[in-house]
Amino acid sequence: MDHPLVELREAVCGANQDLVRAGLVMCTWGNVSGIDRAVGVVAIKPSGIDYASLAPDDIVLVDLEGNPLEDALRPSSDLPTHLEIYRRFPEVGGIAHTHSAAASSFAQACRPLPCLGTTHADHFRGAVPITRDLTDEETEADYELNTGRLIVETFAQQSPMDVPAVLVARHGPFAWGADPAAAVKNSVVLEACARMAIDTFSLDPDPGDFPQHLLDRHFNRKHGVDSYYGQD
Amino acid sequence: MDHPLVELREAVCGANQDLVRAGLVMCTWGNVSGIDRAVGVVAIKPSGIDYASLAPDDIVLVDLEGNPLEDALRPSSDLPTHLEIYRRFPEVGGIAHTHSAAASSFAQACRPLPCLGTTHADHFRGAVPITRDLTDEETEADYELNTGRLIVETFAQQSPMDVPAVLVARHGPFAWGADPAAAVKNSVVLEACARMAIDTFSLDPDPGDFPQHLLDRHFNRKHGVDSYYGQD
Amino acid sequence: MDHPLVELREAVCGANQDLVRAGLVMCTWGNVSGIDRAVGVVAIKPSGIDYASLAPDDIVLVDLEGNPLEDALRPSSDLPTHLEIYRRFPEVGGIAHTHSAAASSFAQACRPLPCLGTTHADHFRGAVPITRDLTDEETEADYELNTGRLIVETFAQQSPMDVPAVLVARHGPFAWGADPAAAVKNSVVLEACARMAIDTFSLDPDPGDFPQHLLDRHFNRKHGVDSYYGQD
Amino acid sequence: MDHPLVELREAVCGANQDLVRAGLVMCTWGNVSGIDRAVGVVAIKPSGIDYASLAPDDIVLVDLEGNPLEDALRPSSDLPTHLEIYRRFPEVGGIAHTHSAAASSFAQACRPLPCLGTTHADHFRGAVPITRDLTDEETEADYELNTGRLIVETFAQQSPMDVPAVLVARHGPFAWGADPAAAVKNSVVLEACARMAIDTFSLDPDPGDFPQHLLDRHFNRKHGVDSYYGQD
Repeated sequence: MDHPLVELREAVCGANQDLVRAGLVMCTWGNVSGIDRAVGVVAIKPSGIDYASLAPDDIVLVDLEGNPLEDALRPSSDLPTHLEIYRRFPEVGGIAHTHSAAASSFAQACRPLPCLGTTHADHFRGAVPITRDLTDEETEADYELNTGRLIVETFAQQSPMDVPAVLVARHGPFAWGADPAAAVKNSVVLEACARMAIDTFSLDPDPGDFPQHLLDRHFNRKHGVDSYYGQD
Repeated sequence: MDHPLVELREAVCGANQDLVRAGLVMCTWGNVSGIDRAVGVVAIKPSGIDYASLAPDDIVLVDLEGNPLEDALRPSSDLPTHLEIYRRFPEVGGIAHTHSAAASSFAQACRPLPCLGTTHADHFRGAVPITRDLTDEETEADYELNTGRLIVETFAQQSPMDVPAVLVARHGPFAWGADPAAAVKNSVVLEACARMAIDTFSLDPDPGDFPQHLLDRHFNRKHGVDSYYGQD
Repeated sequence: MDHPLVELREAVCGANQDLVRAGLVMCTWGNVSGIDRAVGVVAIKPSGIDYASLAPDDIVLVDLEGNPLEDALRPSSDLPTHLEIYRRFPEVGGIAHTHSAAASSFAQACRPLPCLGTTHADHFRGAVPITRDLTDEETEADYELNTGRLIVETFAQQSPMDVPAVLVARHGPFAWGADPAAAVKNSVVLEACARMAIDTFSLDPDPGDFPQHLLDRHFNRKHGVDSYYGQD
Repeated sequence: MDHPLVELREAVCGANQDLVRAGLVMCTWGNVSGIDRAVGVVAIKPSGIDYASLAPDDIVLVDLEGNPLEDALRPSSDLPTHLEIYRRFPEVGGIAHTHSAAASSFAQACRPLPCLGTTHADHFRGAVPITRDLTDEETEADYELNTGRLIVETFAQQSPMDVPAVLVARHGPFAWGADPAAAVKNSVVLEACARMAIDTFSLDPDPGDFPQHLLDRHFNRKHGVDSYYGQD
């Protein structure tokens, strides 16, 4: 296999294991994928494999339609969701799906995660949206593909790079980023913000709108042309 | 001792220790058993023994009426509960009892654990039921046997393999499965679902009924003839 | 020093460190003491010393009036509370004081911890009581001694061995037992029960009275002449 | 570089890493600084650098106006907040900023953290205050400096050494002390008190005023001329 795909496999394998190390995954409930846009290849965790024994060679390679590049393990059953996101959000280079506890609690309550503080504003430019429920028909056939379409639909009016995560109703979060590591980081941040939001709402069920200028200031401090966080 | 019982003892010993590693057990509040249906032998943790020092030879062997197979340690005081489950649920191969915090909180609140999300639906085909209270008479004599009868009664209208767990009112959970490891895994999943449910209810006290088609889709994705999760 | 006091010091030193290992203590907020009734000597943690560096020789020995037996470190500032408990509860052989998070939350809310489940009933024969507030005068002079008197007063109608713990209002828990290790264990159980109670109350603010026969059954299963838990 | 500044850099580097070890910091959301008042030099964490790889030589040195003492990494973007605190609170020798979960939840709910128990009273002589929101203008220009001014304004009627911490509205806590280690310790205590307060409020939304004499007794037990906690 040529070198870029070896790197992609290693990045995806490491990102899946980082998800576990970050405490976001129990059992085998989570998966990370990555894409090499130059060659149109997606790499994803195999289905139902233990993270501890996961090696780069186990990572499954497919094209953007889901066709396997080689004889390999069965990919994560969520693959069609990942592929739809890659096809429709061209800036996305990595995707992580978890059932992390606090973010999934928002998903189960069918509530968006509003911006309540600067921790959120540093990473998400506004509320992390909640999808609508899938219809019976959408669940019946092509369930995972329809989950991807549902995510895309949810971002009809919003840039997926301004808010790089979504809560799928009664299910859990998907997060993404420029590469698999960024997708994992956004999953970590999402869980931390959701956990703080649960406690914030217990202290005040309606803490009021977050000031727009504070949201812009914090998001732009870390992102965009005028960012001044970190080293050059 | 013949070989199958050595394996059973090792499986039960390891499953008891996995329960501790999973963070579900404090002090000595938990026990796992397993059964070899071919010979009618049940293996269970001895009573009040520390998990760290537990060895396969400490595991107590009894028949389905609780008669010891050999001179041994005293079995867990919950043995009669386990035996009643084995006698009445023929597909059960392993049982785990814990006082895990979130599941026990539901038991203490005398509430069933409804299906609120796909994490739950992947493992339990509907609500994990809560038992009624035992009567004074049922508590007075044969308390542990009556707890087993109470569990069986609770599943009068429901398959114990579709929902492999129960919440005993004001006490805590029992979970089961095809073998001791499956019983431990279901205990882990139950605790995770109960923890998320507590947070979900704090965000929305009434999140509405979980869609039946989504419940079926997720349960069947992992179980049954059309499952497509994991490797062949 | 004669041998029994060496053992007492070692037991008290180890029990203090077990308190930290159990996650019940932050910074230096906690202390365990023990008593040798035969010689009337109490051993207690020195004040403000880090647990990691604590050695048996650092443990301070005093008589029941608090007079030091030798030139030593300053004892825990809570010593007068411990001494009053030893003087008035003759069956107590060890005492542990913590600011463990869940139990202290009950203390801060000035609520007793009711028996909500069998985990509690296995160790405490009814509610863990909350003290009244100290008066200004009781706080002004002999504060720590008056805290001990307050604890004794709280058990005027109840055996301190049936319920071996108390919540001091707006402060935190004290627990005790036959020896320092038992005091630590009761602190661990108290914290676990308080944590579950917080979650139980979030699910049902009023779960109803715990059945008396179930309380008796569980307490007696582990304690008293008819106990049948553990090995002989 | 002369010796005192080497020590300052080591103290600040170690304090930043202690913040992570204490579980108060995720990603790079936190920073500790220290000051050498004799020479007017402030040492602070560089921006966006991972804690694990942080070495004393990475610590950035600036004067009280923020001018770098040497060619170095870019300092934490929160530097102007730290500097304003050092300029206006002359007893402060170290400052720690975190997004620790429970304290940030109070900040997000725009609520002060009242004194609810002796754990709080041992370290903070009354409520940890919440700032007002910054205006649009204050956010637009000199945001971090204005955050510092806001903190100073919040202590107009109160000594910053009696209550060595603040909650910045919709953001998170700053804590300080005589040196960087004390600032970290106060951050740890603040988080523990905030966590217990969330649980206390879930048990009783209005636990009443904390008795003034108990607050004074506990604060003075550990601080001031009549302290009698710890060793001489």
